[in-house]
Amino acid sequence: MLSKTAVDHLRSKVGAENVYTEKEDLLVYGYDATPELHGYPEVAVFPKDREALRAALDLARQEGLTLIPRGAATGLSGGSIPTAGGMVIGMTRMNRILEIDEENLTATAEAGVITIDLFNAVASRGLFYPPDPGSQNVSTLGGNVAENAGGLRGLKYGVTRNYVMALQGFLPDGTEFTTGCKCVKDVAGYSLRDLLVGSEGTLGLITEVTVRLITPPRDKRTLLAYFRDIRTAGQVVSRIIASRIIPATLEIMDQTTINCVEDYAGIGLPRQMAALLLIEVDGHPAVVAEEAEGVRKILAEAPADEVHEATNAQEAAGLAAARRTALSAVARVSPTTILEDTTVPRSHLAETFAEIERLKAKYQVRVATFGHAGDGNLHPTAVTDERNTKELENVHAFFAELYEKVLSIGGTVSGEHGIGIAKKGYLLRQFGEGGMGVMRRIKDAFDPDGRLNPGKIFQEKASPSTVRTQGEGHV
Amino acid sequence: MLSKTAVDHLRSKVGAENVYTEKEDLLVYGYDATPELHGYPEVAVFPKDREALRAALDLARQEGLTLIPRGAATGLSGGSIPTAGGMVIGMTRMNRILEIDEENLTATAEAGVITIDLFNAVASRGLFYPPDPGSQNVSTLGGNVAENAGGLRGLKYGVTRNYVMALQGFLPDGTEFTTGCKCVKDVAGYSLRDLLVGSEGTLGLITEVTVRLITPPRDKRTLLAYFRDIRTAGQVVSRIIASRIIPATLEIMDQTTINCVEDYAGIGLPRQMAALLLIEVDGHPAVVAEEAEGVRKILAEAPADEVHEATNAQEAAGLAAARRTALSAVARVSPTTILEDTTVPRSHLAETFAEIERLKAKYQVRVATFGHAGDGNLHPTAVTDERNTKELENVHAFFAELYEKVLSIGGTVSGEHGIGIAKKGYLLRQFGEGGMGVMRRIKDAFDPDGRLNPGKIFQEKASPSTVRTQGEGHV
Repeated sequence: MLSKTAVDHLRSKVGAENVYTEKEDLLVYGYDATPELHGYPEVAVFPKDREALRAALDLARQEGLTLIPRGAATGLSGGSIPTAGGMVIGMTRMNRILEIDEENLTATAEAGVITIDLFNAVASRGLFYPPDPGSQNVSTLGGNVAENAGGLRGLKYGVTRNYVMALQGFLPDGTEFTTGCKCVKDVAGYSLRDLLVGSEGTLGLITEVTVRLITPPRDKRTLLAYFRDIRTAGQVVSRIIASRIIPATLEIMDQTTINCVEDYAGIGLPRQMAALLLIEVDGHPAVVAEEAEGVRKILAEAPADEVHEATNAQEAAGLAAARRTALSAVARVSPTTILEDTTVPRSHLAETFAEIERLKAKYQVRVATFGHAGDGNLHPTAVTDERNTKELENVHAFFAELYEKVLSIGGTVSGEHGIGIAKKGYLLRQFGEGGMGVMRRIKDAFDPDGRLNPGKIFQEKASPSTVRTQGEGHV
Repeated sequence: MLSKTAVDHLRSKVGAENVYTEKEDLLVYGYDATPELHGYPEVAVFPKDREALRAALDLARQEGLTLIPRGAATGLSGGSIPTAGGMVIGMTRMNRILEIDEENLTATAEAGVITIDLFNAVASRGLFYPPDPGSQNVSTLGGNVAENAGGLRGLKYGVTRNYVMALQGFLPDGTEFTTGCKCVKDVAGYSLRDLLVGSEGTLGLITEVTVRLITPPRDKRTLLAYFRDIRTAGQVVSRIIASRIIPATLEIMDQTTINCVEDYAGIGLPRQMAALLLIEVDGHPAVVAEEAEGVRKILAEAPADEVHEATNAQEAAGLAAARRTALSAVARVSPTTILEDTTVPRSHLAETFAEIERLKAKYQVRVATFGHAGDGNLHPTAVTDERNTKELENVHAFFAELYEKVLSIGGTVSGEHGIGIAKKGYLLRQFGEGGMGVMRRIKDAFDPDGRLNPGKIFQEKASPSTVRTQGEGHV
């Protein structure tokens, strides 16, 4: 328990309205978007600027509090859950866009800026910030950087890492750091920037991000194709890439997902279809025309059982919306939604779909699969109820066996959601003791006291006893 | 001195023809392309495969030898110089291209493959590996990764980092590692891959690299523009970017360089011109046509004093060759060529040119400047004679003051050549004690004994007494 003196000191430095110590507030900051997991912090602080943040870090150090950085808490691997109590540092009030530099094609913003706000701000200057995680309407830029967030445009445009030029922030001991700059080339020293991207808030607290901007595509064509056999959809994905067309978006939804979306949104999706592909090609009008023609030809040859093409931007947005609502639609089917994040080299996509179907039958679990087919990044999503412990056991067994397969074909246990708490068990299998040892020593290099986001990524120092499941009640 | 038993053991494991212990051989492996610096190893080993490499690492560990990885030794910051004796590990005999995966658009090759060989091998399958460092005809892929090499196509296509998907190698203690995979998205654990890229062979020994490939541009247009005033050239660079045209190549040469190239190659460059811009736009024919037209318009408005446009591929190659020979041409002017690597946000390019001119006058040094204007990455190159100690002092003072300026405007001390030995003095100024401390601890995380490439990057553990200059004779 933090003493009254300490809380008063914090309030005086950070502003009383930015410090939370009441139980009903702290409960909220014990969750993120990950099912089954939550914690309970001692205090939650929402600094409005670097000075306030520095004061909070000073107090945490004096009091020996752990630090849990928090963006919009849309994370799906438990990365912002305060498993060991401590101080939640909410970044959402440091949300200014500081600069859009049209000469150098960069934007600099505080970590708490919402992704879509940055997108819109640069779009109003005729520029383009491509990373578009599913949560872009609420997620923060700092969270995107910490998780190296992907998105629907990842296939052609890459992920958050590909746009981060510079980071500012604090090490857990309060040392300020800057890494990277506005130079498009920079090889001075180790790239701490690239190490921090995707480090899930376990190495440093990011306060400011400079991103690279590009020129927006001048034209776009959106196609939706339905298939009675999901394997045909998989073949289409392979053929599109093999024909050297790289769509901006190449997304898949299986029959379960189609039906969930139709139940939810009632937009007339054909329930009898086994799979849907959403394909967007963009760029120069001449390129778009050729690539759309190439895609149409592949769809006709496959053949797809139905193809729709948007005739205008509004229709295109409508078609894309079906995919964007997938998670919400699936989530409302049952009390607990466990969304996974398998990624395989895309040549193994069809094989992975087949394995998902086999394991669904074996474990008798309900799983909706959707995701970034072009990236080989699928989100098989179990719809279950965590109070049904037998079913939950089956769900976990399903995913464990699926990940064995994924790793055996050169895949990864996380394409874009991170390790956090939820995936720690898999990491050792992917990296071995040697790799884990180096990562642990890197963690120590940044955070020798282990106060920053403890219990994340690394299995051995986790504190599972402090992780409570929803089944045990809300703390 | 390595014992005869140790050498015999090494020969039996690695093959006698791959082990060098004679003075005349070892002298050669004491150099790279950096002036003023060389060392002298105890032994040089050129393993032909991983097993041979492992045996060499085992012996080095038993004998307490330092390890100095070496590619083609084209480095310009002394990164492969054996400053503390030890074992040079030449990677040039591990030079097989292992796989070109057309489904996943990747290539996997051993670290000793020559960059241009990889480029040509994937080109023969209709694919494109963009990174093209100036030394691409001799440099190795492993060296490119270790230095995060740039090149002439960096502006549009990025640098080596942007193409590395996976790395295999050894930690200095002999532990094998793999980091990254063929998945286009992967966020499992810290990105050791991205930390190793650009770590200059100080963290791990890279044996195998998997790179991302893209579709080659279908068309290209090459323009050469001359200017009587270098400031006009700088403005053209800014205007091209401001008009949202991103050329594949946007290179500059100043008058001194133009004259050196003309002396060397005699290709009819106009000696009276203050600057030359080489501009290449590539991509879809429709895009190329529009962008070339946009560039022509900007050149006409500036105005450029002369514009040449290649009418075919051969002419284009001829125009580009002028820029590619710049370093060789400048290097033959005087016994010692000190090529630097300043990089600034490109909006500061004109200011940087002005500062170079001011400092040339102040220190009375001969400096030819050429480089990647579109990247803000310039190579001011001093032509001097290291036996003239007074002039050499002026050269170093010139660069020291130039780097002060570069850092004050948000630039970096190395855009693409690395820190190695040559730039260690500047790094602390760029990162401060805090940043250097984290980097040092990362070094310790990978190499607790400090046996891998000692004396590089970090000032404090350098062994300047073992670094001999050419002026003192060849060891």
